[in-house]
Amino acid sequence: MNIKIIVEYDGTHYCGWQNQNNGLAVQMAIEQAIARVEGHRVPLHGAGRTDAGVHALGMCANFHPQVAIPPEKWALVLNTHLPDDIRVVASCAAEEDFHARFDAVGKHYRYTMFYRNIASALDSRRSWHIYGPMDVAHMQRQARLLEGTHDFVGFVASGGKKNATVKTIYRSTLTCCGDYWYYDVWGNGFLYNMVRIIAGTLVDMGKGKLPGVTMEDVITAKHRLSAGMTAPAQGLCLMEVFYDKDALLRSCAEE
Amino acid sequence: MNIKIIVEYDGTHYCGWQNQNNGLAVQMAIEQAIARVEGHRVPLHGAGRTDAGVHALGMCANFHPQVAIPPEKWALVLNTHLPDDIRVVASCAAEEDFHARFDAVGKHYRYTMFYRNIASALDSRRSWHIYGPMDVAHMQRQARLLEGTHDFVGFVASGGKKNATVKTIYRSTLTCCGDYWYYDVWGNGFLYNMVRIIAGTLVDMGKGKLPGVTMEDVITAKHRLSAGMTAPAQGLCLMEVFYDKDALLRSCAEE
Repeated sequence: MNIKIIVEYDGTHYCGWQNQNNGLAVQMAIEQAIARVEGHRVPLHGAGRTDAGVHALGMCANFHPQVAIPPEKWALVLNTHLPDDIRVVASCAAEEDFHARFDAVGKHYRYTMFYRNIASALDSRRSWHIYGPMDVAHMQRQARLLEGTHDFVGFVASGGKKNATVKTIYRSTLTCCGDYWYYDVWGNGFLYNMVRIIAGTLVDMGKGKLPGVTMEDVITAKHRLSAGMTAPAQGLCLMEVFYDKDALLRSCAEE
Repeated sequence: MNIKIIVEYDGTHYCGWQNQNNGLAVQMAIEQAIARVEGHRVPLHGAGRTDAGVHALGMCANFHPQVAIPPEKWALVLNTHLPDDIRVVASCAAEEDFHARFDAVGKHYRYTMFYRNIASALDSRRSWHIYGPMDVAHMQRQARLLEGTHDFVGFVASGGKKNATVKTIYRSTLTCCGDYWYYDVWGNGFLYNMVRIIAGTLVDMGKGKLPGVTMEDVITAKHRLSAGMTAPAQGLCLMEVFYDKDALLRSCAEE
């Protein structure tokens, strides 16, 4: 049996999705929950990594259990063994050869900014506090310039892998709802720290810290130093993983 | 000088607004911040109490400092002495006889419910997790029946004071936004636990636990036992305190 799960988590207290040597990973917490049911470790395949402090509303993962539990019951069973800040929101049977990472055709990430002189008392774990004069119309225009198929090597963290850096961004928009500014991006793949570097670059552009530089210039320069700062982890949230391109394109069109 | 401040706080780690003997109160945290500036304790007058775990986006308070700081600078000054989960979002000069509690003409509270089979991994500190079959249209109709001037003694916690229980509710609505259900209420005053008892009663009604009972019946019965359960504190948020009735009525009409 191959079980597909959709996972929601508050990344604040985790070292990220993937198992590492420095702290508890979300993946490990779920593998431990599965082991409580199976009696032994069963590898869990996630759709991708998220950094320490990054959240998810729609991470997707799969695993092959031996215990005969109805597929849709796995969500409830795993939640009884998980901490409150990780919830399996759905589970179902997948094709035997389904793989959450290899079969993904795209993802939707949201980066949340809180724009006010004074920080938020309630949402500091979920957003990046930004302030000061900000040219939001300029930021919104620059966000759209990322759409299309480009080499995004200039948006990779210095330590990140530099292969397969050509990606397609289907939609890239900045929306303002009161004090909350949402940068939403749908793409067929994302490089290490790419969304956080885009968000940081947009804010640097909004503040006038990159005078005369456009997103097209950063793409053309193909160098990390041409982009802006890396926005902090807590503003980022993996919203959805897509396994069907039509569903991805519908999601872009809806927002 | 009389300084009026607007305060935002995450109530999770506090014993409520008002100073008590069992843990840190938000009022005390702010009085300590004022004392750091003034060199001695200055009483802070809040617009009302909030229970342990209840949040605020728009608590209002006032105090009479002696130190000569421009009124609008007090927000920044106090924030440097406050924990991250309490923020003074604005400060200004008030009339010398302004009193945050006695001069208030109304308040807007929001009670947030999260309606999904599986709890939220990210918003459990800010909402009440409800699930199961729920007649939301019935709940929405019942919410509106509270509007008007009534004796709300049936909605007071058993230990609460029973004087001045006639209050006017200007607007009382339940709105559904995906998994989030918001009960919003504007009134000229609220009794102890009143909004949480209304929210709990609405949910009990939605679940069919109070068959045939309407909000009008609960008002008429004038007894706590006729109402439903008390909803938990973490879903409640004080949104705004009004000192002008026109502003209150405009706020009701906008939502």
